[in-house]
Amino acid sequence: MNVQTNAQTSRQPDTQPDPSFHVYDTTMRDGAQQEGLNLSVADKLVIARHLDDLGVGYIEGGWPGSNPKDTTFFARARAELELKHATLAAFGATRRAGTAAADDPLVAALRDSGASVVTLVAKSHDRHVELALRTTLEENLAMIRDTVSYLREHGQRVFLDCEHFFDGYRANRAYALEVVRTAADAGAEVVVLCDTNGGMLPHWVSEIVADVAESTGARLGIHAHNDTGCAVANSLAAVAAGATHLQGCINGYGERTGNADLVTSVANLELKLGQKVMPAGALREASRIAHAIAEVTNYPPSARQPYTGVSAFAHKAGLHASAIRVDPGLYQHIDPVDVGNDMRLLVSEMAGRASIELKGKELGFDLTDDPETLARVTDLVKQREQAGYTYEAADASFELLLAAEVEGTPPSFFDVESWRVITESHHAAGEEAPSEATVKLHAGGHRIVATGEGNGPVAALDHALRQAIERAFPDVASFHLTDYRVRILDESSGTDAGIRVLIETSDGATSWTTVGVGHNIVEASWEALLASVTYGLRHHGA
Amino acid sequence: MNVQTNAQTSRQPDTQPDPSFHVYDTTMRDGAQQEGLNLSVADKLVIARHLDDLGVGYIEGGWPGSNPKDTTFFARARAELELKHATLAAFGATRRAGTAAADDPLVAALRDSGASVVTLVAKSHDRHVELALRTTLEENLAMIRDTVSYLREHGQRVFLDCEHFFDGYRANRAYALEVVRTAADAGAEVVVLCDTNGGMLPHWVSEIVADVAESTGARLGIHAHNDTGCAVANSLAAVAAGATHLQGCINGYGERTGNADLVTSVANLELKLGQKVMPAGALREASRIAHAIAEVTNYPPSARQPYTGVSAFAHKAGLHASAIRVDPGLYQHIDPVDVGNDMRLLVSEMAGRASIELKGKELGFDLTDDPETLARVTDLVKQREQAGYTYEAADASFELLLAAEVEGTPPSFFDVESWRVITESHHAAGEEAPSEATVKLHAGGHRIVATGEGNGPVAALDHALRQAIERAFPDVASFHLTDYRVRILDESSGTDAGIRVLIETSDGATSWTTVGVGHNIVEASWEALLASVTYGLRHHGA
Repeated sequence: MNVQTNAQTSRQPDTQPDPSFHVYDTTMRDGAQQEGLNLSVADKLVIARHLDDLGVGYIEGGWPGSNPKDTTFFARARAELELKHATLAAFGATRRAGTAAADDPLVAALRDSGASVVTLVAKSHDRHVELALRTTLEENLAMIRDTVSYLREHGQRVFLDCEHFFDGYRANRAYALEVVRTAADAGAEVVVLCDTNGGMLPHWVSEIVADVAESTGARLGIHAHNDTGCAVANSLAAVAAGATHLQGCINGYGERTGNADLVTSVANLELKLGQKVMPAGALREASRIAHAIAEVTNYPPSARQPYTGVSAFAHKAGLHASAIRVDPGLYQHIDPVDVGNDMRLLVSEMAGRASIELKGKELGFDLTDDPETLARVTDLVKQREQAGYTYEAADASFELLLAAEVEGTPPSFFDVESWRVITESHHAAGEEAPSEATVKLHAGGHRIVATGEGNGPVAALDHALRQAIERAFPDVASFHLTDYRVRILDESSGTDAGIRVLIETSDGATSWTTVGVGHNIVEASWEALLASVTYGLRHHGA
Repeated sequence: MNVQTNAQTSRQPDTQPDPSFHVYDTTMRDGAQQEGLNLSVADKLVIARHLDDLGVGYIEGGWPGSNPKDTTFFARARAELELKHATLAAFGATRRAGTAAADDPLVAALRDSGASVVTLVAKSHDRHVELALRTTLEENLAMIRDTVSYLREHGQRVFLDCEHFFDGYRANRAYALEVVRTAADAGAEVVVLCDTNGGMLPHWVSEIVADVAESTGARLGIHAHNDTGCAVANSLAAVAAGATHLQGCINGYGERTGNADLVTSVANLELKLGQKVMPAGALREASRIAHAIAEVTNYPPSARQPYTGVSAFAHKAGLHASAIRVDPGLYQHIDPVDVGNDMRLLVSEMAGRASIELKGKELGFDLTDDPETLARVTDLVKQREQAGYTYEAADASFELLLAAEVEGTPPSFFDVESWRVITESHHAAGEEAPSEATVKLHAGGHRIVATGEGNGPVAALDHALRQAIERAFPDVASFHLTDYRVRILDESSGTDAGIRVLIETSDGATSWTTVGVGHNIVEASWEALLASVTYGLRHHGA
């Protein structure tokens, strides 16, 4: 560090370097580079609050000055955002070649952003300096030196992202190290080594980070992408080699294959390696927050996502159910509660009595003292799964089956007399083919005939059915289909094959999935639809 | 190895250990443990052919004897499956406690499976032996010794999966090592260390694999799960520490967070570390095959999936577009062609002319000297794929599109006036819901009205359509639907979502696939059906 910067720092106590480990989220900047992901200013404000609840140390909010949306975000954040834990960081680039930092409008936007931390991106790969920046290696160093110093002089803390660092190090180690030294000497608090193209493997990251730490003495950070499927492992390797600043995105969002998943990286550090990097207990909110942010981005996380995915602690119990009951720790790598997730047992064709008993308990049916019902349900599940049903993906249908066996009669709120659906197309008229359904049923003491239209036979049936029972069961108005999946069960015989339909329904607060099977896709859909409405009414106290 | 086994081996030249590196796929066994993933026998036969095309060394087909489906699969595989590269492996467990291997029906099913390789799963964690197997540590070793020896004596090669190995090693290193030694001494060619709960991190895997290799001298394999987001890194760590057998699943399918993604692991080994483990050039088919298998499982891979994901080489070009054009290598970690993927600039969408030209040539349309048509077709394909069509899986529809552009008018043999399909159910009568379709069209100079029934709206439409044109085009009698697939394109909006239908038709000699897209499933099916008949007539010289 040079003397001037040190002196500057000592006059600005609120910009003292944070001595602890940095957990730095870049969902709203680098994560938003993901194909198809677009965040409004309002989205960003919501996400920032969630990230703060999660307990991350730093939230990169965007690039003020580069587009009106990000400029507005920083203005509104200053006025509206009260963060409990996190510090908001503004992202931007070093000054343009051949200008002074003070004269660069983008640097001014960073200075005026209201963010106490600025993260500057700089080139550290010689070829990129020449080809993308079209300037000299020396001028690039000057750009870094000037911009860091300028922002430090204006009272901001500066982190510096070295773009394409690892590829740059391999192409020209001396220059890459010089970039790190220049940034640190100018007052950058952390120099972040970015695997921008994502091509690194963990052992390479280990070696390079260790060398950079030893050669420069700078405080280092890591920013990894998942192009080799190793973003998390690369982040851990960097931390083990001395990095004390970890960047990542919620749900692994990001360009191409995404950035390092922040929750997975942090959970590995805290729960596996005993390195406390977040407020105590913060990770217990991780699953809820990861899903809440997914609601905002409209990019649901993979069910298979480590730690927070809905399948992350789901077991096709079968053989091991009894052992799981005795010691669940033998079958899961951590206690799912530590990341706010749950163990789930899936009822599958391999299910034995033990797993059905466990599943029943989960749904509020204690079968421990009723071995006969338990045996009957187990047999029935096996028969049904043989016929093409699947209960592991259709909890609601399983609950209805269980309720029918335990209570002696299937849950039912109305009697269907008949239904019909017509789909018709007149090519000459050039119109889209609409579907029209008629349902005849008895509900609330009346015979009702209702007709519904829809963009397809199932939508039409859904509309007709809900219209028919709405007077007797007004709650049904809040139900709507949120997912519809079709699976052909035996593909050797085309459309005469068995068909399985899964329908997911939501009432705005919760959602549930039901299954139907038949030779006719419409019939299978109808079965799932009926079950969906029946389950919904049962839980709405009808 | 004990003497008896060695002697046995020398009399069985076809069971000699394979000296090279094993790439071992377990998609159809461990991958099928994924929540919601169910594979029919027909699915498995298709997947096995794809895996063989990909060039994997070993394909784990399932557990014969444990359920009728897997038993049937091995029987049909023996009769129908001709593999170019791969060896089929049967999965199963060591004999039950307290019986002889020869008396265990599940061991007999492995022996009789027709598979030259058997992969046995065994317990290697002391607590699991006691709690899940409910037997003694010594009996577990005897179960391993007996079962391996028995199958070796019957001429099969044996790999042994040590379940919960890493947790077991930490709990009781001596016993875990004893399991490895016992298996190797009994003649297991490879002992596979399984991170069954998926909780490992790469540096732990490195240390443990190195110790096991040194302590036992056994040939080792690795089987990793992704619960820490490190399945691929853990696999690479094991290989670096001496494992020469790598297990994984296509698209990272598997229970909970999935298994190690086989393509990502192999691509890292081959393209990053220069370790050739697959037939030369095989990875160039990886993206196509990963997506083709996803069509079978109906679980599309994440767009962000490393190497094969549709976004894996997609760039929001912006600032860097010109630099990317000058030197794309600066912006991607490998050449996407090496895994059969493409760089995409998101501003200009995919280019694709070269591949369309190539595909056209394959179908008999030479567009080399017709750049205008080529550009028009490329644009049209781009538009259509944007709307949800997929031509990769629907060659016949692509040919019709190409023919329309080259010949100036779409191939057509009849004019449809209208169609209608009714599906109806009378619950009181307890009957299955039949569908009835009426098609009105002009063919061979006549106006024809025909009605067909079927086990569903598409079957009914198919029957009505073929009946209507049969007099004018008798060949149509030989066409029949052999596959029908439905994919919901936007799952967030239930049955009002866009729907893609793929129909496969056969004339007994060859088969072809067509695609239809629409909001209404029946309408999308009709489009695919019409294309299917049109393509068939075109190739039958109508």
